[in-house]
Amino acid sequence: MNPHFRPVALDHASRLINHGPTVLVTTAHGARRNLMAAAWSMPVEFTPPRIAVVIDKHTFTAELAAASGMIGICIPGAAIAALVHAVGSESGRDHDKFERHGIAARPGPVLGVPWLEDGCIACLEGRLLREPHAEDAYDTWFAEVVAAAADDRVFSGGRWSVSDDHPELQTIHHLGGGLFARAGNVIRT
Amino acid sequence: MNPHFRPVALDHASRLINHGPTVLVTTAHGARRNLMAAAWSMPVEFTPPRIAVVIDKHTFTAELAAASGMIGICIPGAAIAALVHAVGSESGRDHDKFERHGIAARPGPVLGVPWLEDGCIACLEGRLLREPHAEDAYDTWFAEVVAAAADDRVFSGGRWSVSDDHPELQTIHHLGGGLFARAGNVIRT
Repeated sequence: MNPHFRPVALDHASRLINHGPTVLVTTAHGARRNLMAAAWSMPVEFTPPRIAVVIDKHTFTAELAAASGMIGICIPGAAIAALVHAVGSESGRDHDKFERHGIAARPGPVLGVPWLEDGCIACLEGRLLREPHAEDAYDTWFAEVVAAAADDRVFSGGRWSVSDDHPELQTIHHLGGGLFARAGNVIRT
Repeated sequence: MNPHFRPVALDHASRLINHGPTVLVTTAHGARRNLMAAAWSMPVEFTPPRIAVVIDKHTFTAELAAASGMIGICIPGAAIAALVHAVGSESGRDHDKFERHGIAARPGPVLGVPWLEDGCIACLEGRLLREPHAEDAYDTWFAEVVAAAADDRVFSGGRWSVSDDHPELQTIHHLGGGLFARAGNVIRT
């Protein structure tokens, strides 16, 4: 795992996706596992930490999430932007994307969903709050975060410290078509 | 209005918030109007263009949205980051925030919700898709976009062209506590 990872207090967990980064959604059930890119996620509450993420109901990720009742959310740094785009452009139904792309993962601390070992600056585990209507009508899945960790070079004590000195650790924000903006050039209002 | 605004095809409208910018939610009903900052929004579908946004059910914005059945979404550029933080830190129940902050607005083209004249790089109008349970349990409101416009210096033909040459036109992404990252330093994967 990223040796800079430190546990994040649950009250601070929603802040990890507060600024709209593209994330990787990981799932596992039995012997199967998967990951996909998701540009569409957001917090919906700080305490308890709850989030929403859009997962197309026809995907393998949706199938594993529904079967297991849980998801992982890993926040990639800019260093792995190409990988994020690659895993967002294929289905994991017929092959294991972790193996195909040489992605190392370990089980998260509470639920055991896959957390990426390298290239991510934060990971969360979420227990699904099943909402059949929202899932069906809007592909919108809700989850309560039960564990989180972040790279203490960019998130510590509940606060972001985004620096242009570490561009590889900046979050990426999908503009469409494989084009990502990085979050940097901080403004303090 | 921003003289660089051009209409955006509805099929491209969801892409305007694809990368997770902090937005301004505008509302109007009868003689009352309001605007608030919302860090938490996301698209949920491209066609038809549908979005979700978190609006605390106890806010004046929620009251006007529920009464009118519609919202505006304006995407601020970095030039007005301080204003975004200011209008996100007060309630409009007792005063008109537009007047207090000297914000000019004009009615959007289809629904007539307020669109900011200055400092924003895109605006959308959304007709609410009322979901009482999601609104109550998660403060999550869904809407279908019925009109959109964007500054053609940064969004044209359905594509973003984010440039570090125009930092004032970059979107802002709230890290917490009045700290915003700007979306720039584009990576093409």
